[in-house]
Amino acid sequence: MLLVQKFGGTSVADADRIRAVADHVARTKRHGNQVVAVLSAMGKETDELYHLADLVSSTQPGRELDMLVTIGERKSVALLAMALADLGVDAVSFTGSQAGIITDNSHRRARILEIRPDRLSEALAAGRLPVVAGFQGMSTDREITTLGRNASDLTAVALAAALDAELCEIYTDVSGVFTADPRLVPEARRLRELSFEELLEMADTGSKVVAQRAVEYARNHKVRLHVRSSFTWEPGTMISEEYEGMEQAIISGVTHDESEAKITVTQVPDRPGVAGRLFRALADNSVNVDMIVQNVSSDGRTDISFTVPKADLASAMEVARPLLGDLGAADLVADPGIARVSLVGAGMKNNPGVAATMFETLSDTGVNIEMISTSSIRISCVVRGEAVEEAVRALHAAFSLDSPDGAAS
Amino acid sequence: MLLVQKFGGTSVADADRIRAVADHVARTKRHGNQVVAVLSAMGKETDELYHLADLVSSTQPGRELDMLVTIGERKSVALLAMALADLGVDAVSFTGSQAGIITDNSHRRARILEIRPDRLSEALAAGRLPVVAGFQGMSTDREITTLGRNASDLTAVALAAALDAELCEIYTDVSGVFTADPRLVPEARRLRELSFEELLEMADTGSKVVAQRAVEYARNHKVRLHVRSSFTWEPGTMISEEYEGMEQAIISGVTHDESEAKITVTQVPDRPGVAGRLFRALADNSVNVDMIVQNVSSDGRTDISFTVPKADLASAMEVARPLLGDLGAADLVADPGIARVSLVGAGMKNNPGVAATMFETLSDTGVNIEMISTSSIRISCVVRGEAVEEAVRALHAAFSLDSPDGAAS
Repeated sequence: MLLVQKFGGTSVADADRIRAVADHVARTKRHGNQVVAVLSAMGKETDELYHLADLVSSTQPGRELDMLVTIGERKSVALLAMALADLGVDAVSFTGSQAGIITDNSHRRARILEIRPDRLSEALAAGRLPVVAGFQGMSTDREITTLGRNASDLTAVALAAALDAELCEIYTDVSGVFTADPRLVPEARRLRELSFEELLEMADTGSKVVAQRAVEYARNHKVRLHVRSSFTWEPGTMISEEYEGMEQAIISGVTHDESEAKITVTQVPDRPGVAGRLFRALADNSVNVDMIVQNVSSDGRTDISFTVPKADLASAMEVARPLLGDLGAADLVADPGIARVSLVGAGMKNNPGVAATMFETLSDTGVNIEMISTSSIRISCVVRGEAVEEAVRALHAAFSLDSPDGAAS
Repeated sequence: MLLVQKFGGTSVADADRIRAVADHVARTKRHGNQVVAVLSAMGKETDELYHLADLVSSTQPGRELDMLVTIGERKSVALLAMALADLGVDAVSFTGSQAGIITDNSHRRARILEIRPDRLSEALAAGRLPVVAGFQGMSTDREITTLGRNASDLTAVALAAALDAELCEIYTDVSGVFTADPRLVPEARRLRELSFEELLEMADTGSKVVAQRAVEYARNHKVRLHVRSSFTWEPGTMISEEYEGMEQAIISGVTHDESEAKITVTQVPDRPGVAGRLFRALADNSVNVDMIVQNVSSDGRTDISFTVPKADLASAMEVARPLLGDLGAADLVADPGIARVSLVGAGMKNNPGVAATMFETLSDTGVNIEMISTSSIRISCVVRGEAVEEAVRALHAAFSLDSPDGAAS
């Protein structure tokens, strides 16, 4: 079968790791599969290139920045192709442009418009093994573009879709998707299977295993993913549209996110158009708003709370403050000391007691809930930052996520 | 006027140096010139990439090696374009391929077949400043190729020829071409002018200031060169077909080369075909033979001596030894302890006394001459390695090269 195997930066961090990856790729091919390898840059190389750009320039035109930062992947693919040659595998490296990844002209964060994988198909037909540079493409103006930070996952998924591969394997430094962050919850269990929707909600609420854009692309093009470790090489987590037992497990995992801050606009008059003006202004200033909560008002006035990345807090405050008078609001309060804890699970749709159990568990643990937001397969609570680890552990235990039968209670 | 400015690895070794180069290039443009910048990789980056290739692979297919080692220049050009943007200069970086450098398909040491500088001409016409990656091109098979080590000089000269530039400036870590190596001869003087022929002979006999292939290309396409320092920015040495006063100065410089070894085949029967068979065998085994000397024989037998790079000595001996019987020669003697000292000067054509003065000077200094070889503008002597510095100093003094009138004696 045809497999796309994607290896992240830690998987190809040095010459020894590259040779280990070559060995694994060569074995996969020798077992009768066709393989397309997709690589990130070695270790922290891309960060170092961005740093070098900071040292020489404060302007950094997007075209030049993309010309610069795409060389990390070009280096790793040439090295892997050479290492494969040593193992008798006829490998051939391709830049994003050579691999036929056509993007729009937005440097720094280009969108994929089309994949024209002719050179990859020809190489595969000739029994060769293509090694493709992730993260990059060529614009319709024939300039080198990048797809945004950590977009090598997206390259792999997009190629898997274009080549109609049976599976896209994402090799990383963890051995799969877990029921919670194992650094916080030692009992956390690796999930054998997960749906795209669940992984999307987990990615959205703090799990960093697979980049969100890549999961969305995989869902839209029905590309099965296998998230696994390039250190242990053992089977990890399979992600597909639906899986056996999907309905039984109510909760797939507990995620948490400490990267956001909360802003509250107090005493807003409860009349149409207020929220619209506020969030339009934030959007126009490129502030990424995540959760938004507004309560029903009793006295004609209400508080609106929302979360933004901590890095955007200052600019969000700057945008919102001059609007206070117009909005008729009393004050603006910034709170960087929050965290979010979320429950994710496709099974919760049909299990109305999940939210109640979550709130009871947090209450019993002495964790105060500051904001609540839900989707059909997720419940998120904003809590104090210092309470988040305890909250994750308590929820993991309450939903029995450490047992393979999971959340049966 | 249109200038091509080429900067070597030490000139762009770090962020500070890149900003200094940007400043100089921007000034040149502000003075009303059109500029095309050509860059080498930063510092020792290319060496490090070759080393990394050694760590991951012993096979190193040429295509993959070229994919890898061309990234050094791609990095430096993107960084210089960004640094120029900071100075308000609309710069745009180009890979060798984007610059239209079309080569044959010989990876590792491709030959330039054609330059199609359309994108550079368009950029210049639009008032933009092209920054081109040296050392690389694109093959007729549309693969990335390299032109051989230190070939960024060649890129600069070839672009200057294709764009009909008035001058190609080679910025390096020395301030021009000297009458001798200033580390050996403190009195050595920078030459204001030099002919292509003289620079070629000097490059051939040990002066490393400009790569020989680049000088040959410049001579064939009549591209005027200006060799100067990117540390002092002061005027250096102008190289052209002919220059004023070319006939007056008999000697332009003394060069020396300690990189070669000597091999002598003794007691060779003096009959046709012997030398041919020996040097054909060496050529077939990619041994680079430099000087060859064979004396007229008196007793029907003669010695043939030749020099090879020290790195090729072992393989040259392996190739030559089995031929001894066939050639009817007595023995093969390897001598790695030699050096070559050369006098170069267009004026010596019309001054028959130069060779005599050279031999007398060496004799007076107690330096024994082991081999002699001449061209119309060069005389080279092989001497003991430990005597070479003294020989260079003695010849520099004997021909009064420390005085601007030079070699008038």
